[in-house]
Amino acid sequence: MKVRIIVRFKDTVLDPQGQAVRNALHTLGYTSVKDVRQGKFFEIELNKIDPGQAEKIVQEMADKVLANPIIEKYNWEIIEA
Amino acid sequence: MKVRIIVRFKDTVLDPQGQAVRNALHTLGYTSVKDVRQGKFFEIELNKIDPGQAEKIVQEMADKVLANPIIEKYNWEIIEA
Repeated sequence: MKVRIIVRFKDTVLDPQGQAVRNALHTLGYTSVKDVRQGKFFEIELNKIDPGQAEKIVQEMADKVLANPIIEKYNWEIIEA
Repeated sequence: MKVRIIVRFKDTVLDPQGQAVRNALHTLGYTSVKDVRQGKFFEIELNKIDPGQAEKIVQEMADKVLANPIIEKYNWEIIEA
């Protein structure tokens, strides 16, 4: 089973990297770019595991290791059963 | 219009950050994790623009700025019309 966990800053948290990218794009002439938010994702391959348990450990891993719950939020999806 | 561009290493390129995450998860007891690949994404909000032109500039921006075509690949999708 393969899952994708997408981690991003909460909407209220400033995203300086995204702003830097936006400025770079403006400098290059892409003025139709209004806003850029950057984030990261993890694609995790799990050994055979039932979907219920997968849900439990994916959320646990995201809370403990992959995301910082104070400033980041995440969502996840199964991309390969 | 809002697009999401997902950038990741090509499959043939080593992903040390993903391996570090996998090792950390193993150390914490998540032994059902077989493999981890990490990547980044950009959510870009564009001013009113027709879809054909959006496709053109998104691909251009990805090739020139957001991804390194030698070691990375990307795909993108429209997430808000």
